Parts: sequence; structure tokens; C-alpha cells
Amino acid sequence: MDAYLHRAEQLLQRIHTLAAISEDSNGVTRTVGTPAFLAGSALVKSWLEAAGLETRIDSIGNVRGRLVSTYPNAKTFVIASHIDTVINAGKFDGPLGVLLGLDLLEQLINQKVELPFHIELIAFSDEEGCRFHTTYLGSKVVGGFFEADLLQKRDAAGINLATVLATMGCDAQQLTHDAIPAADWLGYFEAHIEQGPVLYERNIPVALVTAIAGQQRIEMVFRGMAGHAGTVPMNMRQDALCCAAEAVLAIEQFGQEHRQTLVATVGKLDIRHAASNVIPGEVVCSLDVRSADEAHLTWASQALFENVQAIAQRRNSTLDWNLIQQTAPVTCDANLNSLLARAIADSGYKVIPLVSGAGHDAVPISKVAPATMMFVRCFKGISHNPLENVELPDLAAALRVAERFLTQLITHHS
Amino acid sequence: MDAYLHRAEQLLQRIHTLAAISEDSNGVTRTVGTPAFLAGSALVKSWLEAAGLETRIDSIGNVRGRLVSTYPNAKTFVIASHIDTVINAGKFDGPLGVLLGLDLLEQLINQKVELPFHIELIAFSDEEGCRFHTTYLGSKVVGGFFEADLLQKRDAAGINLATVLATMGCDAQQLTHDAIPAADWLGYFEAHIEQGPVLYERNIPVALVTAIAGQQRIEMVFRGMAGHAGTVPMNMRQDALCCAAEAVLAIEQFGQEHRQTLVATVGKLDIRHAASNVIPGEVVCSLDVRSADEAHLTWASQALFENVQAIAQRRNSTLDWNLIQQTAPVTCDANLNSLLARAIADSGYKVIPLVSGAGHDAVPISKVAPATMMFVRCFKGISHNPLENVELPDLAAALRVAERFLTQLITHHS
Repeated sequence: MDAYLHRAEQLLQRIHTLAAISEDSNGVTRTVGTPAFLAGSALVKSWLEAAGLETRIDSIGNVRGRLVSTYPNAKTFVIASHIDTVINAGKFDGPLGVLLGLDLLEQLINQKVELPFHIELIAFSDEEGCRFHTTYLGSKVVGGFFEADLLQKRDAAGINLATVLATMGCDAQQLTHDAIPAADWLGYFEAHIEQGPVLYERNIPVALVTAIAGQQRIEMVFRGMAGHAGTVPMNMRQDALCCAAEAVLAIEQFGQEHRQTLVATVGKLDIRHAASNVIPGEVVCSLDVRSADEAHLTWASQALFENVQAIAQRRNSTLDWNLIQQTAPVTCDANLNSLLARAIADSGYKVIPLVSGAGHDAVPISKVAPATMMFVRCFKGISHNPLENVELPDLAAALRVAERFLTQLITHHS
Repeated sequence: MDAYLHRAEQLLQRIHTLAAISEDSNGVTRTVGTPAFLAGSALVKSWLEAAGLETRIDSIGNVRGRLVSTYPNAKTFVIASHIDTVINAGKFDGPLGVLLGLDLLEQLINQKVELPFHIELIAFSDEEGCRFHTTYLGSKVVGGFFEADLLQKRDAAGINLATVLATMGCDAQQLTHDAIPAADWLGYFEAHIEQGPVLYERNIPVALVTAIAGQQRIEMVFRGMAGHAGTVPMNMRQDALCCAAEAVLAIEQFGQEHRQTLVATVGKLDIRHAASNVIPGEVVCSLDVRSADEAHLTWASQALFENVQAIAQRRNSTLDWNLIQQTAPVTCDANLNSLLARAIADSGYKVIPLVSGAGHDAVPISKVAPATMMFVRCFKGISHNPLENVELPDLAAALRVAERFLTQLITHHS
């Protein structure tokens, strides 16, 4: 049997074992600080210790295991992903990257490889942000970007993060000390399921992530004139839903025309005072636009505004266009990416450069360190869902590529 | 001063006085059986008595005043509208028709006109159906169509209609006896605000109602595929909202093309599990189609289904099309209508035949008696809203036309 397939079986077994620890019994739910989360962290910590890593849980709940280099002035290369989940999640989003990293380190330990840099494997405690509605808590601490006011964020039960950290046995005084100093970073690598359908559709096991898309979240409010669905003739209407519908289709068409460089989605649409016998007078929609290129995102958002504004004007309706949230794109490190691309090609796979439309811990880390990411194919692109799945051969392919990448990185720095 | 303008002032004063009796203090709210409703009924009853009509409150709470003919075998002509309201209503929807009728009867009494038929003025107790979610309670009793199981209908507090009638001092045993026997009907006339913008836009005070539209209410369910708004490329999506948006616009366009004969409205649209970062996977919409021609309505509904079905198929989505409710159109009586058209023309106004898209008490009554309706212009077509308004000159015009209509009817039967 292929050695990678064999290792993939152990990796898959660990993913299943961790997934069995959940706040509920349907999908997987492990939000930061809950008993299931703490049990999951303890399990991961035990695996890291058993592998021979210098292991600890830091002040935000990250599980961290170090494989130390004897080189003087050795820097630190981080391999990481997260072990918290959304509500009713799948098994692979997060744990795959952590446990794949564990396998890589086990190999290095078994083969007694002399390291030119320290390697730190990190299981971030909160990437999804489900409990406190703020993402990247774990990686912000490691990157040195944790803002103290986050400690006052409250969960649905009104408990703030500071209190939750205390019950987890974490010392919030240590948060700034748990950052890896900027000068110590060599780089960052994260393997993650794609959470999209491209690899599935193209039948390729892994991909290189070139960038993490920036995002604009916009609220659009269309105002026409409400009226009785029976008494207002068709040519005397100012139907806010028809106006919004035309905008939805214009946004879709714009997205299609620029599908190489962006995605655009209307995910929410609410008719105020909706009733089947009332012509909609006001409609509120969300708009989510993402692109890897910040200037392109800015241009696209403005172009969409002008398109939608023209639709509203032509229909004698008004448009409010409110920018709700904006995040800048992150570009992955060119050197690490070229190393990863070579590892993919050398493993016999086609090199597909993908932009991640979803956010990842690489977003805060990339501000302080060169970062790269590898995507692994998942079933039909389904994620944040118990149906999330990764086939065994794809795990083997991911191990093969990641190992080659790491070996080349070690050779390069030795 | 023009006599009709003077009478219109009294009519408007009565409308304001009745409107001041309300369950709440913003708009007007008088749902059947409430203290405000009973106080309003008592006021209307006192006005009918003062005018010299044989007045009573019947077993469903209708206020009924009779002006009796001495002719042997005289039939009954009914002038009516309703005095219940929706929640937060305007002042004119319903009361206008009742109090305009009262003015007409006061004139006949003052002038000691010998009647060839009895005239009964009725203030129906429940047309809107807000309290028991069933319309035309008052007119169903008078028409002889009251179904006994309606007594078990419950309001939001769980109180059934039978109990409410008892607290109103009504005897439910009398419900069938309060019908005007089919053989006794001469006809039915109702004046009502248009509740639409046609007269306002065309600057005409009154219109002839030729029919009350039939209606189909349909639930449309679009199913595509939910997905992550960041990770699914534009060309791999099955966005149920885009599918619904295309349907909304196709329905609007169909309505525009057939605007002489129907109206079509999507009033509700709900995205299941909506979130700004999730591609909509399932969307539920309402569709309300109305036409005065039953065969046309059936054809239009089928044509719309085929249009929308084709959209769903082209987008690899599915469509459920569920007929929720269906009411047949009502055609107003040709003879009464031609009399009313002549009264409008003779009063110097352009005769505009309108189809009522809203339901009225004429719907049940038309099953047992020839019925006609006159619409009165209201401000911008606004109704079911405290902004509902009718200008004094339009009330005068309505009085002038209705009086001419009634005079001609009397002449015709004398």
C-alpha cells in the first residue's frame, strides 16, 4: 500500500475522532470555551505531546506544539489551522490542516531531520468567530494583533470573552506575550478544504491559494410605493421588489462578466411589511462582493452602485447604498507560493492557482509573516454542513504535496 | 353655495365624527365586536333613527334602517357599505358608502318621495375580516350565505364569533332570518373609495365599477443550491434568488403586457436560511393575480406558470407552484350599471368603467341580487392607511351622481 494512503488513513481516523467531540449530536459543533471545545483541545494537545512536541495551551486557548531547531538565530515556521467550528459543521474545516501538520511533524521526528528553523504547529482556538461574532481570535494573538477590547465581546448568553478565558484557565495578561515576535517569523503554511466546487468540478486534489479575497458588504435599500395588489394598475406601480429583482439580476450579470476576478452575491432580501396582497414599497438587500484585487474590488463596487442606481432611477424608486463592512484582500507570499507550486507539480498534479473567497487565519498572519495556503478538494464544495467530506486519496495527495513543500523549504534554508 | 357641497360638508363631518371612535388613537381601528365598534354602531344607529328610518341592529351586528314603500309587493333595494375597519385604517373605507346612503334617504324623506320599492340602508358589521380572518360576515347574513361553522372562527385571543355575538347582544339563532329573501331583492348599490390611483391620476371624481376581479393566490417555491458566497464561482451557482428575481420580472412584464385585463403581484419573498454570505438555496414567493374575466384569469395563471417554470428549468432550479386560494370574478348588473353610467354622464362627468381589484360586500350580494358599485376618487389611491382622504368636491360629486341614479331608479319603477 502507498505510504501516503496509509498515513492518510491515520489522518482521517484522527479527524473522525476529533469530530466525535461535539456540543450536539448531529453535525460537529465546538465553539470556543465550551466543554466540547475544551475536550477537543485536550485531545489535540495529547496527540502533539505524544508526537514529541513541546506542547502548551496559550492564553487564548490555542494548542501549540514546537519542534525546535538547534540552529543559532533560528526563525519559526508555523503550520496551523483551527479546531473551533461553526454550528452544525462538518469534520474537515480546520482540523484537516492541524492534523495534516501533525503528520508532517511526526515524519520529521521519526526521520530525525535536522531543522534549520523551528516549526510550530498551532491549532487556533477561534477562527470561525461563532461565539463572539468576531473572527481570528486565535491567530490574532499569535500574529500580535489582538485588540484588548475584544475581551469585552459577549456571547449570546451575555458572557464576555474575558470571563470565558478565565474559565478555560487562560491568563488574559499573557495575550500579548503569546505573539510570535515579528522578527522571529519565517513563514506560515495552512492546508484547508477548498469550501468551494472548483477542484471537485475539475477533478484535481489540491490547489495553490494565491490570495484571500477582499470583501465589501453593502446594504441596499430600495424604496418605491406600497399599494393594494388589486387596485393599482400595472403601469402606475413603483414596486420596490421589481426594482430589487432587476438589481439582483444586474449584479448576477456583472458577476458573470467578471467571474475571473470577483464574486457578487445578494444573500438577504427583506420586503418591509410584506403581504401577498400588498405591492412592496420597501426592500432591503445585502450585497457581498469579493475580489483578490483591492483596486478591482473598489472599481466593481462603484460600477455596481452606478448600475443599481440607474435601475432605481429608471423605476422612479430610490436607492440607499450603505457600505457595512470592508476587508482588504491578502496576497500570499510569492516565494512560498512558488515553492508550493513546484511541490504540486513535482507530485504530478496540475497547478491550479485559486483565490480563496472565504477568510482564513492566514489573513491576520500575513500582516506579520510570509504566508501560503494549500486547498484540498472537498465533496461538491460543500462546507459548513455535516455533509462536508474529503476522500482518502485526496488526503494522501495533500500529505504528499505538503511534505514535499516542507522538505524543499528545509533544504532551501539548510 | 352649491347644495351638494353643503350636503358633502355634513357627510364629511359625519365621517370625521365616526372616525373619532377608534380602538386606538393613531388611525382608525374598529374591528367587529370591540367597544369602539359597538360605540360606532350605536352612533350610526342614532343617525338612522333621527332620519326617520325603521332601524335595528341585526344578529350579526349590521345596522339596518328601512324606508318603507306603500306599494303592494314592493321589493327591497339595498344601499350599503361597511363600518368595520382594518387596523390603523383611514376614515373613508366603508363609512363613506353608508353615510352617503344616509344623506340620500334623508333627501327622499324630506321631499316625501313616494317609493315604488323599499330602501334598506345597511352598515355591514364585518367586511374587512380583520378579527376572524374571514371577510363579508355582515353581507353574507343579508345575502343568505352565512355558513354556521363561521361561528366557531376564533380571534387572536381565542374567542370565537359565537361568543362575541353573544356579548354584542346578538342572537345567533336569528342569523338565517336576517337574510333578505332572494325573491325580495330589487338590487344593491354601494359607493366606495376606489382604493387605487386611477381616478386620482385621471382627475375624475367618480367611476362606474363593472366587475370585481377574481383572484388566484399562488405560492411559488424556487430551489437551487445554497453555497458559500465567497467560494462558489459565478458560473457554478444555482442561485434561487436570481431565479426568483427573473420570475418576478417576468411576472411584472406579463402584467404590463396584459394591463388592460389583469394585475399580477409578488408581495412576499422569503429566502430560507438567508445570510449575506450564503448563496440563496431556496426562495418562497407569493403571487397574486386578479382579473375580471374568469377564463382569462385561468389562462393567465397557466401562462405565468409556464413562463416561470421555463426560467427555473433554464437555471437548473426547481419550481413548486401551489394554488393557495381562488375566488371567481363578479360582474356588476348590466341594467343597474347602465343607469349609473347615465347618472354619471348626466352629472357632467366622464364615464370611466373600472374593475375593482379589491373585494367588496357586493361580492356575496351579487349572488342573490343585481348589484352595482360607484367608486369615489381618493388621494393618490392611498387606502388602509390614516392618510386615506377624499376631497369635499368629490363627495359632492358622489352625492350628485348617486342621487341622480336613485331618482332614475325610482322613476323607472314607479
